[in-house]
Amino acid sequence: MVSSTSTFLEKLSVKWQEEKFICVGLDQSNFDANSLVVDATFDLVCAYKPNSAFYEAKGTEGLENLKKTIQYIHEKDPDMAVILDAKRGDIGNTNEEYAKAVFDDLGADAVTVHSYLGKESLQPFLNRKDKGIIVLVKTSNPGAGEFQDLDTGGKPIYQVVAEHVKKWNTNGNLGIVVGATYPEELKAVREIVGDMPILIPGIGAQGGEIKQVVQAGINNIGQGIIINSSRGIIFADNPREATLKLQREIQESLKSV
Amino acid sequence: MVSSTSTFLEKLSVKWQEEKFICVGLDQSNFDANSLVVDATFDLVCAYKPNSAFYEAKGTEGLENLKKTIQYIHEKDPDMAVILDAKRGDIGNTNEEYAKAVFDDLGADAVTVHSYLGKESLQPFLNRKDKGIIVLVKTSNPGAGEFQDLDTGGKPIYQVVAEHVKKWNTNGNLGIVVGATYPEELKAVREIVGDMPILIPGIGAQGGEIKQVVQAGINNIGQGIIINSSRGIIFADNPREATLKLQREIQESLKSV
Repeated sequence: MVSSTSTFLEKLSVKWQEEKFICVGLDQSNFDANSLVVDATFDLVCAYKPNSAFYEAKGTEGLENLKKTIQYIHEKDPDMAVILDAKRGDIGNTNEEYAKAVFDDLGADAVTVHSYLGKESLQPFLNRKDKGIIVLVKTSNPGAGEFQDLDTGGKPIYQVVAEHVKKWNTNGNLGIVVGATYPEELKAVREIVGDMPILIPGIGAQGGEIKQVVQAGINNIGQGIIINSSRGIIFADNPREATLKLQREIQESLKSV
Repeated sequence: MVSSTSTFLEKLSVKWQEEKFICVGLDQSNFDANSLVVDATFDLVCAYKPNSAFYEAKGTEGLENLKKTIQYIHEKDPDMAVILDAKRGDIGNTNEEYAKAVFDDLGADAVTVHSYLGKESLQPFLNRKDKGIIVLVKTSNPGAGEFQDLDTGGKPIYQVVAEHVKKWNTNGNLGIVVGATYPEELKAVREIVGDMPILIPGIGAQGGEIKQVVQAGINNIGQGIIINSSRGIIFADNPREATLKLQREIQESLKSV
């Protein structure tokens, strides 16, 4: 396995300094197709995000392709961050096993997790100081508000989750997820979490608009956003052109921040 | 793959009528060890619950063992329910893939899921009428209350989740998780969800007490509980004896309901 001494956050920071904010969502389990997308885009992006479900649906062959895809990205650029979008979350002794699966077996740099079982349950993830632990705060789907927007103590639950994540971040390895489909909520969350990385899915197929998203999500030092595009890039006739177009849109949006 | 025409709930109901309420948690990825545990216990229990994390941590070999374990249980008894404890939960088009992985590739009868993204996201699971979809309500871990006990509209969040799950259950294929470590909360949740199956982890190693749990969890027709024991059975010197002991404790507890 190709390794890097950089932490997840260090990897991201280097890319952000190069004004790279795009994350390509690898929502297909075909290794050959993934390697072509990586070849076409790796000099333009800050991260790749394989979605575990699409590989799991193909059984052991899918899992092999997931592992090969992550290795391929690290061979291409050892300092490229790979976020496994797996949305894990169980009790502590089980999360210890999930951390082994995601980081030690698959070799990912970061993972998405659920907060419902609380900080105590997430400790095995939080202890991985060199990895990124990205907690769901406000998701991109149309029905996200059913629970996430419920009021608790005068605030919606998603904001309370963001406040807790901010407090948990003693190792500096946490991030959060906020959907591009909710730019106002993104703005409110950015104020809560300070400079923390925010993974932003939901542009393109799901309808999020770039300019609003960039302006709401960017942090005080002009960094901190990981803008994910999956179907818009991997199923484009020309993935590189699609990535370049998105890059231009992001750069235009940054000029007017 | 050995198949049965029975739904998850039908499988459970037959076992419950035989006064079988124990679920054995298969928290190890060793197929040979699992098959010995199954051989020793399958005439005493209502379900098996492999914990996905323990298999995922072993990579493709772990996944093969998970699949073989599920097949072995179904060969032994086609009407035995296998609950894959995977705690999945993503947006709709991703949950479609998780449902394929869990039900079509692995052959499980039921799966545990997170509710945070709402009913709309869970629809691909809810549509599987013959399967069981078991939603996390109040988990067994010590830090479960950090979010689950927050007040919303005069009630703790876990009760609001239970109310929503009760409403979602138009296909009659839903269940919930409530930890054995919280018997009072279990009682409150049973009143909310009516006869719905409740998966109850957390006895033994985690400290939940049988009598309180059975009395708080049993439904109006003396059924509806799936009492999980993992480490207390699979790592016992004699798994059958450990299961029989737990069975006696449950039967004693039922007499005084």
